[in-house]
Amino acid sequence: MALRHFSVELDELHELLLKMGSMVESSIRRSVDSLVERDKEIAKAVMRDEPAINLMQVEVDSRTTRLLALNQPVARDLRFLTATLKINTDLERMGDLAVNIAERAISLISAPPVKPLIDIPKMAALTQSMLLRSLEAFVKVDADLAQTILPADDEVDALRDKVYTELVELMQREPALVPGAVDLIFVARNLERIADHATNIAEDVIFLAKGVDVRRAVVRPALG
Amino acid sequence: MALRHFSVELDELHELLLKMGSMVESSIRRSVDSLVERDKEIAKAVMRDEPAINLMQVEVDSRTTRLLALNQPVARDLRFLTATLKINTDLERMGDLAVNIAERAISLISAPPVKPLIDIPKMAALTQSMLLRSLEAFVKVDADLAQTILPADDEVDALRDKVYTELVELMQREPALVPGAVDLIFVARNLERIADHATNIAEDVIFLAKGVDVRRAVVRPALG
Repeated sequence: MALRHFSVELDELHELLLKMGSMVESSIRRSVDSLVERDKEIAKAVMRDEPAINLMQVEVDSRTTRLLALNQPVARDLRFLTATLKINTDLERMGDLAVNIAERAISLISAPPVKPLIDIPKMAALTQSMLLRSLEAFVKVDADLAQTILPADDEVDALRDKVYTELVELMQREPALVPGAVDLIFVARNLERIADHATNIAEDVIFLAKGVDVRRAVVRPALG
Repeated sequence: MALRHFSVELDELHELLLKMGSMVESSIRRSVDSLVERDKEIAKAVMRDEPAINLMQVEVDSRTTRLLALNQPVARDLRFLTATLKINTDLERMGDLAVNIAERAISLISAPPVKPLIDIPKMAALTQSMLLRSLEAFVKVDADLAQTILPADDEVDALRDKVYTELVELMQREPALVPGAVDLIFVARNLERIADHATNIAEDVIFLAKGVDVRRAVVRPALG
């Protein structure tokens, strides 16, 4: 087996992870678009794309494990690869959550609109931006950029609370709207969870950036 | 730095992971007990235990990364250690979900009971059993035991659907019960997600058990 240079393989892994991230970002955007535009076809396209995201997860996992096995990296590279395994799981789950939103969208489109959607699209735009910035921070190991994601998570949580309060009041006034309102509560909850995964990635980056030195201090004496 | 034998350290990692699993299992049990017995103190105890579970996650991560760095394992051991990193994340999230249930319990206990709780305790018992079996399957790398977890996940999903349908009907009949019913929908949803994490662990075990041979076939020629 021809072994290519480790750093070339790492760069390819970066690219693969960014590509996966952009597919997940597109799924999030389209899942909420389908809801706003009441277009089932967009939601179905999100569902059709899920297997491709899952395949990328398997590919990232297998390349990362192979790099761990064949190159026996230490310090920063080791920490980067173990973080890649975690972030890969985060991305795949964000993709699943976008599919959950698409499923709720299909259910919601089958009935008259529950209410005008204002805060949910805002939540979606915030989470998409959080995802893209967290991945950029990861490949650059940029703790400052990662840090900007944490306040956005608080904004998403505040919007989720607002949506939740409005929908509980709506259900109490209009019993016929209960099933649709429950679907919308789950849409808001899924967006909040997507934001939580982006926050996990940002926290991994902050740990990675700080941990590099800590880890080297521990590992260097043992490895000479 | 004194390096102890790799297999001794792996055994200790097993034990740590099982101990963490039993803490998470206890949190799940107590979160639903607090709801059934309407006892806020039990819910508060679950919240107080969360930092200890998070500390164990950090400990498992740091030991696993250290074993990866200093022993440069291949094949089965490598795959076991990368699976440990994933399972560690699953366990920590299950702990978070138990805390979410405890929070909903405190909110629910502050108001009159929404309905008699029958299916939610059933869901809790199933998820606890799934968690314990998935961890046992992991440390034994027992694919047959892991396989028994998959049908239990379908049972949990069926109970979640039942709870959901009943609560939607209840909200439509009794608007005053809407906030409590929404809390119960989230309790059922959190239990379903705990079961999903146990299923993830079981799937990792099945992959681990099967993947050992696949991996060896790939890695052996390269490493001679």
